[in-house]
Amino acid sequence: MEKKRVRIALDAMGGDFAPQSVVKGAIEAQKELKDKVELFLVGDKGKINKEFSRLKVSNSPFGLIHAPEFITMADNPIDALKRKKDSSISLGINLVKKGGTDAFVSGGNTGAVMASALLTLGRIEGALRPAITTCLPSEKGVVVFLDGGANTDCRPQNLFQFGVMGSIYANSILKIDNPKVGLLSIGVEQTKGNELILESYKLFSNSCLNFVGNVEGRDVLKGTCDVVVCDGFVGNIVLKFAESFDGFLTSLVKKRVKKSPLFRLGAFLLKISIRDLRKTLDYAEYGGAPLLGVDGVCIICHGDSSSKAIKNACKLACDMVENEVNKTIKDKLAENSKALKEINELKN
Amino acid sequence: MEKKRVRIALDAMGGDFAPQSVVKGAIEAQKELKDKVELFLVGDKGKINKEFSRLKVSNSPFGLIHAPEFITMADNPIDALKRKKDSSISLGINLVKKGGTDAFVSGGNTGAVMASALLTLGRIEGALRPAITTCLPSEKGVVVFLDGGANTDCRPQNLFQFGVMGSIYANSILKIDNPKVGLLSIGVEQTKGNELILESYKLFSNSCLNFVGNVEGRDVLKGTCDVVVCDGFVGNIVLKFAESFDGFLTSLVKKRVKKSPLFRLGAFLLKISIRDLRKTLDYAEYGGAPLLGVDGVCIICHGDSSSKAIKNACKLACDMVENEVNKTIKDKLAENSKALKEINELKN
Repeated sequence: MEKKRVRIALDAMGGDFAPQSVVKGAIEAQKELKDKVELFLVGDKGKINKEFSRLKVSNSPFGLIHAPEFITMADNPIDALKRKKDSSISLGINLVKKGGTDAFVSGGNTGAVMASALLTLGRIEGALRPAITTCLPSEKGVVVFLDGGANTDCRPQNLFQFGVMGSIYANSILKIDNPKVGLLSIGVEQTKGNELILESYKLFSNSCLNFVGNVEGRDVLKGTCDVVVCDGFVGNIVLKFAESFDGFLTSLVKKRVKKSPLFRLGAFLLKISIRDLRKTLDYAEYGGAPLLGVDGVCIICHGDSSSKAIKNACKLACDMVENEVNKTIKDKLAENSKALKEINELKN
Repeated sequence: MEKKRVRIALDAMGGDFAPQSVVKGAIEAQKELKDKVELFLVGDKGKINKEFSRLKVSNSPFGLIHAPEFITMADNPIDALKRKKDSSISLGINLVKKGGTDAFVSGGNTGAVMASALLTLGRIEGALRPAITTCLPSEKGVVVFLDGGANTDCRPQNLFQFGVMGSIYANSILKIDNPKVGLLSIGVEQTKGNELILESYKLFSNSCLNFVGNVEGRDVLKGTCDVVVCDGFVGNIVLKFAESFDGFLTSLVKKRVKKSPLFRLGAFLLKISIRDLRKTLDYAEYGGAPLLGVDGVCIICHGDSSSKAIKNACKLACDMVENEVNKTIKDKLAENSKALKEINELKN
């Protein structure tokens, strides 16, 4: 029997370089994933077709869903979703809701994608809050880092569920066996951290997660553990701080070249290294960040996603559907909630 | 009239390379600061004298205060302070308290230095909480970053006072005119942030600080503002994350060299750049981090401080005393508290 194709809706209008980067990314994804996927572009028909002519694609293999409106990066998410019912984000998420596609990929307004996914798709049974799940490079391999910014204020239960979801993601998608999970804090001892971390520590250590305890800021890039859990406020700050390193390093090198002209000789080698760094730190390279916890596959891409990033996001969406990540999340959350209840009952 | 010398007590036992690095640092500081300072080494007399013989210093210019005990890096701060009353940290802080010296410099157990300073010296009148005040490099110059880890859970008033103290530090020590102060958050808009930031924003914008609003993780190294304010939990994570970049970059370069032997040719240039980076990111290069808000000058150095870092910390201590930073903090906190009260009264 032929394997069912994974149907993915792409927000053709989302991102700084849309629709060019999205259309090009879709073509690259189709080329690489072939019969595994069926892609749908959601956006302004005129603009998308113009892009096809520019690329000299006469017979597009994609479904095309016209969205007359689109939400800009500057729009207030909730407000825009109310005003623009026919935006590419709303229509794309609706496709997933109605079963027209299995996943949605967008490099558009992150807040709007999150809000739309949460309001339309709802949460996976048992999931309290969704988390933006990013991948970061480390000395030892890829580290799953969450929450990347969906939740600014969290409770211990939220962090714990992020741990469960991150662990499943590391296992199902990155194929890491029994992933090591760490809580991001200011010291490795159980007594170190803010109130949220101190409380969360107890939940983690009483669970069936492979919990390695607290990890520090320096442990993320060292790859001390496979899954790093924090609230979305801390996570967003760390991710954006990491992204800025590239520019900072470039400015450092420029100053050095100015100081010593001899250094210019090696500058091209430095450029390669910085390009490596940029590539390594750019989370779009990992195919965007899934919003784990919502009842549907939704991949959030960087605003400045290249076609390659869009292609990788499609690959990730395909992986997530084929590996039934959301079903595993539902099952594991139920298991863990049962186990936590039993522990609490034993204590009382 | 001769200018009064600034008397500085140095924790000779504090740090991974103590007492070697501290004794050597004191010698370098004396050489550079000459008549401006009078230095006192606090620690195990035998070990310090041994270091002098090793360095062939027969006539030490330093005062020497024998401390028979010392607090290790692994000691629990509060517990160790109780058990080891004659530790170099306790005796050093006591010297400042009793007026024997004007400042204390230590690369020892950070928690113990903080606790001892807070318990013995107390807070500056009007200061709610002390903050570890670090300096970070940026594309535009040095950025004052606080709190670096003294307070894990903060209230808006705490963050506001950090803003006031950081601003004074930037002005008095770094000679930045009317320093731009930013709140570290997840978006520049007033509506972006966690509950703490949303509340703090109001305090900052109603103050006489040169408040530029929220800044993001990427703004720190860009140098968007001169003073970046956050709680000690976020601050500590960001600082440690930044420190780990050096090792991460080195591992990246090593992999690249392995992949392409031609690259080896330029590896020495990369090494220089990474050394630059390390130097730029190592906050010890900025002379350690003052604990602002305690009633006395107390400089916390990195555990792995080199002699140069110790020397720079002495310079910083000297600057802080000569510029009467703590007096300015007291005055400004009083002014701001009066102004905030008036604003609140006008509102009611």
